[in-house]
Amino acid sequence: MLFNPKVFSQRAFSQKARKKINVGIIGGAGYGGTELIRILIFHPNVNLKFVTSRKYAGLKVSSVNRFLEGLIDLKYIEPDISIFPEPIDLIFFATPHKTSMEMVPRLVREIPEVSIIDLSGDYRLKNPDEYETYYGSKHSSPELLENFVYGIPELNRDKIRRARYIANPGCFATGIIFALYPLLKEGLIKSPVTVVAVTGSSGSGDVPKEVTHHPMRAKNFKAYKILEHQHLPEIKQFIRERCGVDELEMGFIPQSGPFVRGIFTTAVAFNPGLSQEEVLEAVNRHYRGLKFVRVVNGSPEVVMVYGTNYVEVSYRYRDGFIVGMSAIDNLVRGASGQAIQNMNIMFGFEETAGIWFPGMKP
Amino acid sequence: MLFNPKVFSQRAFSQKARKKINVGIIGGAGYGGTELIRILIFHPNVNLKFVTSRKYAGLKVSSVNRFLEGLIDLKYIEPDISIFPEPIDLIFFATPHKTSMEMVPRLVREIPEVSIIDLSGDYRLKNPDEYETYYGSKHSSPELLENFVYGIPELNRDKIRRARYIANPGCFATGIIFALYPLLKEGLIKSPVTVVAVTGSSGSGDVPKEVTHHPMRAKNFKAYKILEHQHLPEIKQFIRERCGVDELEMGFIPQSGPFVRGIFTTAVAFNPGLSQEEVLEAVNRHYRGLKFVRVVNGSPEVVMVYGTNYVEVSYRYRDGFIVGMSAIDNLVRGASGQAIQNMNIMFGFEETAGIWFPGMKP
Amino acid sequence: MLFNPKVFSQRAFSQKARKKINVGIIGGAGYGGTELIRILIFHPNVNLKFVTSRKYAGLKVSSVNRFLEGLIDLKYIEPDISIFPEPIDLIFFATPHKTSMEMVPRLVREIPEVSIIDLSGDYRLKNPDEYETYYGSKHSSPELLENFVYGIPELNRDKIRRARYIANPGCFATGIIFALYPLLKEGLIKSPVTVVAVTGSSGSGDVPKEVTHHPMRAKNFKAYKILEHQHLPEIKQFIRERCGVDELEMGFIPQSGPFVRGIFTTAVAFNPGLSQEEVLEAVNRHYRGLKFVRVVNGSPEVVMVYGTNYVEVSYRYRDGFIVGMSAIDNLVRGASGQAIQNMNIMFGFEETAGIWFPGMKP
Amino acid sequence: MLFNPKVFSQRAFSQKARKKINVGIIGGAGYGGTELIRILIFHPNVNLKFVTSRKYAGLKVSSVNRFLEGLIDLKYIEPDISIFPEPIDLIFFATPHKTSMEMVPRLVREIPEVSIIDLSGDYRLKNPDEYETYYGSKHSSPELLENFVYGIPELNRDKIRRARYIANPGCFATGIIFALYPLLKEGLIKSPVTVVAVTGSSGSGDVPKEVTHHPMRAKNFKAYKILEHQHLPEIKQFIRERCGVDELEMGFIPQSGPFVRGIFTTAVAFNPGLSQEEVLEAVNRHYRGLKFVRVVNGSPEVVMVYGTNYVEVSYRYRDGFIVGMSAIDNLVRGASGQAIQNMNIMFGFEETAGIWFPGMKP
Repeated sequence: MLFNPKVFSQRAFSQKARKKINVGIIGGAGYGGTELIRILIFHPNVNLKFVTSRKYAGLKVSSVNRFLEGLIDLKYIEPDISIFPEPIDLIFFATPHKTSMEMVPRLVREIPEVSIIDLSGDYRLKNPDEYETYYGSKHSSPELLENFVYGIPELNRDKIRRARYIANPGCFATGIIFALYPLLKEGLIKSPVTVVAVTGSSGSGDVPKEVTHHPMRAKNFKAYKILEHQHLPEIKQFIRERCGVDELEMGFIPQSGPFVRGIFTTAVAFNPGLSQEEVLEAVNRHYRGLKFVRVVNGSPEVVMVYGTNYVEVSYRYRDGFIVGMSAIDNLVRGASGQAIQNMNIMFGFEETAGIWFPGMKP
Repeated sequence: MLFNPKVFSQRAFSQKARKKINVGIIGGAGYGGTELIRILIFHPNVNLKFVTSRKYAGLKVSSVNRFLEGLIDLKYIEPDISIFPEPIDLIFFATPHKTSMEMVPRLVREIPEVSIIDLSGDYRLKNPDEYETYYGSKHSSPELLENFVYGIPELNRDKIRRARYIANPGCFATGIIFALYPLLKEGLIKSPVTVVAVTGSSGSGDVPKEVTHHPMRAKNFKAYKILEHQHLPEIKQFIRERCGVDELEMGFIPQSGPFVRGIFTTAVAFNPGLSQEEVLEAVNRHYRGLKFVRVVNGSPEVVMVYGTNYVEVSYRYRDGFIVGMSAIDNLVRGASGQAIQNMNIMFGFEETAGIWFPGMKP
Repeated sequence: MLFNPKVFSQRAFSQKARKKINVGIIGGAGYGGTELIRILIFHPNVNLKFVTSRKYAGLKVSSVNRFLEGLIDLKYIEPDISIFPEPIDLIFFATPHKTSMEMVPRLVREIPEVSIIDLSGDYRLKNPDEYETYYGSKHSSPELLENFVYGIPELNRDKIRRARYIANPGCFATGIIFALYPLLKEGLIKSPVTVVAVTGSSGSGDVPKEVTHHPMRAKNFKAYKILEHQHLPEIKQFIRERCGVDELEMGFIPQSGPFVRGIFTTAVAFNPGLSQEEVLEAVNRHYRGLKFVRVVNGSPEVVMVYGTNYVEVSYRYRDGFIVGMSAIDNLVRGASGQAIQNMNIMFGFEETAGIWFPGMKP
Repeated sequence: MLFNPKVFSQRAFSQKARKKINVGIIGGAGYGGTELIRILIFHPNVNLKFVTSRKYAGLKVSSVNRFLEGLIDLKYIEPDISIFPEPIDLIFFATPHKTSMEMVPRLVREIPEVSIIDLSGDYRLKNPDEYETYYGSKHSSPELLENFVYGIPELNRDKIRRARYIANPGCFATGIIFALYPLLKEGLIKSPVTVVAVTGSSGSGDVPKEVTHHPMRAKNFKAYKILEHQHLPEIKQFIRERCGVDELEMGFIPQSGPFVRGIFTTAVAFNPGLSQEEVLEAVNRHYRGLKFVRVVNGSPEVVMVYGTNYVEVSYRYRDGFIVGMSAIDNLVRGASGQAIQNMNIMFGFEETAGIWFPGMKP
């Protein structure tokens, strides 16, 4: 069983659960960083000590993000290790790709006791060649890759508990892995697997660009990076490690839709001879009892996970086709919420601490 | 070649092309019917003689649809054959399922010379059992099914030209067939085929309901009728007839997105050993020169076909996966525009007459 | 000063602040009721004991609202006083107009010690004739009108503290009063005052209707109830009582916009001879230090208060025109959040308890 | 009467109406320019001869705007007078402010017979000091200001007919003037007048920026340039000239809403002693019979004018307040459609030529 409620609630009352750790955020002005702040300022086990932003260094976090006024007193600082206030227990990277692989080696050297959760893609792939292929630049600290644990909490909890460094999964990867995991783990599906996943505009970050220009985006739907999105290798790597499927052939078509938050994933494979019951049983074996995973009838819905750390999944079998679907909030479960859940596991806090809030209707 | 420009332009100057026909619309107050009106009032070969609506009978079309004020003088009439003004050359049905199969037999008897284009699903399936399975009621005039030609203009033009009765394709079916046709016709893909297609809210019609309630829809993305949508059998039937693929196994997951107009289709199959070039050549053999079909690089985009009769398609091959995508406006190409294109072909008008308008940016 | 931080923080540590009250919700399946549940299940001083819904009686709250799964165990019950679990300290009415004025008299008789916060318009107007004029039916319990205190927390805190029954303000009224209060209180503006306020679609409730049909609403902007909205008299009554302006002439044009949550209010008057500084000083005299009221430069923004109990206001003076603007979330500050803030004041809890959460970016 | 249908229909059959003119567009890659192209390629009296774009010079118009593929063969050229193909009868400027005032003097010198319609603000204000105040730079060709006629077709038709140079009104100015004109002309309202007008995101142009970044815009509503928008002086100037109101005091609050196309204007004044009937009669005296102006009951609706050259207006009088409202499509009536209507009048074409298309539902 992936989740043992008994262990969970015992931990909740342990001393460890009451301690507070000192936390810093590198890259705290984008959507991922802001979402980390929004959650961490209410986290019972966290003292948020610093937040960096090249662009806004010197300005108050709450003047750049006025919806945080009265909730945080920090000013953004430069992302310069030498000025980070110490002691620091954990640093989140919410930076674009390439930043963390440049900074982490020095961090590790100079603050050896610090834990790291990297929301970027820099330390997700064990194979630096894959990184180069998919991210377009040579990895600058490949020697550290093995030290990072892939942080998909419910499905990798044991390793996360013992980890010092976490590579937080990509948003698409999160949605896709949750849709596929029990099916692959139980051997119900095999290659080829087709995955179509659509993301809201917040997935493109906070810098205005063509694809998020409101006059066009609000009326548009389209695909991009067809069959070559950079989240493919991290999914395959995880499936290989955790499901024992060595060479999953997966065609992944990412799409962008005219909404703000959310990723909806549809994963399909063909395997005649199963039944809806078998599929659901397999799913329940893995997902029953998970606090943040809702197995629903019908379809997952983005509106039901809006602004939350929940994952909705549902499964349908008919005429030989197995369909696994998931809905997540790309900024919470697809980034910052999941990162904080990883932190909770690493530090022995209540796993739901700080992220135990429902969505909204509407 | 599906489209012979030379023939086309000759026809444009034929006498036939200058004649005008008398047209009526049954079910002219929903989105499909209103869209027919919007286009037909400017059509050079059409006199729109009557429009029916049970709900609005007696009211001016332009008072129910004030954006048509000054453009149409008709009042809605009851859908009662005995009061239809004659002579009438063509009747469009833009009614919910079950209406046309009830009315058509009498129409055919009493106005034997009339042509019919049915936008509903009633006469699309040759096999009345399939109708019962997918539409939930016994077909009431199965003897007429064989008389209807499936009206997907570019891909069935010869039959349409000689047809008196047209079954206009479903909106999803249109998008899916355009995405798949050249691949299946050329034998590049085989079963199983996975299709994910997302529609805007206008596909649900003009009656307010849960799934189109703005507070929820505007933030939502979800699937429905997973693997059992009623457009499946018409697609398979057409593929069987036109592509010679007898038992296509197709998993179709329809989805609803938070936009108003448009259907984006993603069709995927697995067939190692091909190349991007082969795929594009096959596509071009069928789609090159078609006025309303744009083969694009990258991705089709809903915004580019918004409000138009165009179909955008694109194709991608990589790692054994073939992806065919299409974007249409569900109310124009997915319904009324395509119906008018069928009319143009049937009556020998310029095929683009009345529907030759581009989209908007933005 | 409206808000005394010293008193506030003392109260926070009083015994009273630690107690828990038993709370029920009548009308708990609409947007207002669901929002009450969403907040109350995390409120440190509340035991939510029952929630009624005629439509869903017998069903679990969390199966009707699956985003609340795991967070609430209650089933909806019928709105029948005789089955309400006792003891009960406070009942919220989140019902359509007419319901509370029918039920409250019996409630008051049978559970005399219960407190009531009515989110509907039934007990807002002291004058039952005005009720009849604006709500279209005779008031059925006018004798109770005087017992209700208008619950606009920051601007009526003393009365709320001593109240047993609260009439929670209308959503538009809340936005408008916050925009106008300091200007009227300080005599900076006088009649006539023009108010334009636009609401998101969630203000129309959870029942699908024409005006919230996504295909139209998503592209539309329009006005309604022009100069005759039912929130006008409650605004004037409050202004009369609290600002001493007897006959405010106010033209109010409500509008509906294509977004889900939020009300943006623009209030304008003409008074030559003032200055921007005078206006801001007047505003600050009343709003400085208020935890939930942000006086911003530029414009209030709906996105900055999304999902929160905050009010953003800003003021501009130029060429004789005074413009006061506000932005609120119609379901939180315009309904349930404000109701809970009223509860906090009535029961001596920390005023921010349960509603002290920021918005999101984006 | 502003519009004489008899004269109109006579003109329609005149020889002049059948002639074709040569037209060029300077600045043809933005939304305004693209919308000009979209309409002009179907205009019966226009040969579109060139379109300029610094950014896309050398590229096909239809490859930059693929929705125009098959409809236009031109390539963008540099905005260099010396390469413009001649003879040319009319040039549209769809450029940002400052461009036309730099180019027009040379144009006028070198192609003295050319007509000009300038969609930018450069030649709208007679007083160059006002230009400097509102546009932030000194006017570089003030000597030409008097030669430009303000092109609001229905309300300035006689001057437009005799004009060679047209200053096309601003989008907000268009909406506001249509809302106010009959009231001011008939003396029903006087200062102060409050105007609130909200625009869709396409009003911000095609360059991605903060205010049109989808993740924020899609959930936002806010005001900007409060009481100081640059369209104020052109409105006042027009009102002075055409309504004889010398010093209109007008407070104008522009706002931006989460939709793509449309401007909704609310204009309010206070004048006790009138009646709804008087107001409507005054309105009808001016607007009855105008082909593009719809006086509606209830509220104008943006969705009803979407993509069209129509103006919807409505008026409400109650308790001394007069409310005039209008809805337009900012890119058609607020820019390119109106410009083409001006062209039609200038050149004696059917006034509706090329722009006589209705909206869509939905």
